[in-house]
Amino acid sequence: MKKKIKKIKASILIIGNEILSGRTQDKNISFISNWLNLSCGITVNEVRIIPDVEKIIIQNILTLSKKYNYVFTTGGIGPTHDDITAQSISKAFKVKYEYHKEAYSILEKYYGKKKFNDGRKKMAKMPSGAKLIYNPSSAAPGFITKNVFSLPGVPSILNSMIENCKRYLTKGLKIHSKTLNLYTVESNISKNLGKLQKKYKKFVDIGSYPFFRLGKIGVAIVTRSTSLIKLRQVNKELLSLVKLKQIKVLKL
Amino acid sequence: MKKKIKKIKASILIIGNEILSGRTQDKNISFISNWLNLSCGITVNEVRIIPDVEKIIIQNILTLSKKYNYVFTTGGIGPTHDDITAQSISKAFKVKYEYHKEAYSILEKYYGKKKFNDGRKKMAKMPSGAKLIYNPSSAAPGFITKNVFSLPGVPSILNSMIENCKRYLTKGLKIHSKTLNLYTVESNISKNLGKLQKKYKKFVDIGSYPFFRLGKIGVAIVTRSTSLIKLRQVNKELLSLVKLKQIKVLKL
Repeated sequence: MKKKIKKIKASILIIGNEILSGRTQDKNISFISNWLNLSCGITVNEVRIIPDVEKIIIQNILTLSKKYNYVFTTGGIGPTHDDITAQSISKAFKVKYEYHKEAYSILEKYYGKKKFNDGRKKMAKMPSGAKLIYNPSSAAPGFITKNVFSLPGVPSILNSMIENCKRYLTKGLKIHSKTLNLYTVESNISKNLGKLQKKYKKFVDIGSYPFFRLGKIGVAIVTRSTSLIKLRQVNKELLSLVKLKQIKVLKL
Repeated sequence: MKKKIKKIKASILIIGNEILSGRTQDKNISFISNWLNLSCGITVNEVRIIPDVEKIIIQNILTLSKKYNYVFTTGGIGPTHDDITAQSISKAFKVKYEYHKEAYSILEKYYGKKKFNDGRKKMAKMPSGAKLIYNPSSAAPGFITKNVFSLPGVPSILNSMIENCKRYLTKGLKIHSKTLNLYTVESNISKNLGKLQKKYKKFVDIGSYPFFRLGKIGVAIVTRSTSLIKLRQVNKELLSLVKLKQIKVLKL
């Protein structure tokens, strides 16, 4: 393993009282994280969920954009009073909050001049110099300010836009992953798993997650690595352990 | 409104690589938040999701336990090598990480002396002085260290334990909430909503969330307040607005 591993780290900032209050079940975290992992070789190392409060948004944008290569925000870019992501990011980076010419013309064309009211115009206001993330489902674009990617909160719209982020991202090494579903309990294998994790510490992450399926309890062993060779080695050792302990493997 | 409103604020710290990687869809955030809101009058003001890394857990425990009345952690209290919540919290608060006598005896009784192996014993190790959160589904207790409540990551087990947290919590004022589902678009009402929010700024939070249902688009207007009177006033004004604009209300 002489090859230098380029680790690219991202964080996700969910902006929205509706997620914090429990009213809405978030679906964007797992979607964005999976997409970054599988399509870009980028890992998500931290997620925060915060309310629609300017001061708090500014603090978190500054902290996370310094700490990680990329920040993905969701929510708060619509037309209503509680949509304050764009103006907060402008303040965080001390740039003007102003109409983005191209966004303005995209929205004006989409709604038609007559129906292009103040609420809709607001969606064209962005941090000065922002790059657009095009929106094939409902026109209103997301935007990129420095290393911060701002996307909408509605999952179906976000999902339709995510591929348009790709060309602005530096890709990392692909992260390979394998899951072994075992009909056993964690404590039966915890000692051996601990040893195995120690042995492969630098190369492979081993996670152990209990599950309940069809009335049976089991453990999913998830291994993740940028090296396919090391991943295969670990899984070979895992299978020997499974054989030795006479554990049944669940095939899905 | 002479009554002093006691605001009690909590945060949730999700500890687990499986949520960060997108492999597992979190279900605990909305469950805990709803329960705190509805059963205890406590609001969740921040959520963080972090990896199973000791240093990061310690930093976040220290930050969040200072910032909020309560912190709820989920995950990392099982028997395997990646379960390091208890030892990390011990380090954060500079207390011993040791066997909790009652937890030890609960687990020994549950598994039987012969099957009480090292992995299972690990689940009885906690920060010194911790109070137990009893677990009616799989015995292994959660624990309370100062203002930090540590619960397991498996949703069904967590759900069965949450009521046992109640007696340790100071309750806040009940938060009332009302949702009005309108067949309209946000930009049609954004101006009026903004004005209404300004008027009731101190008493009521107004949120606006677009939805797609049965092929139609709409907006859910969610109002939240500790004052039922103010909540009713706002909703009365909202209904006048709806009437004025000839918007159809969706009854669920």
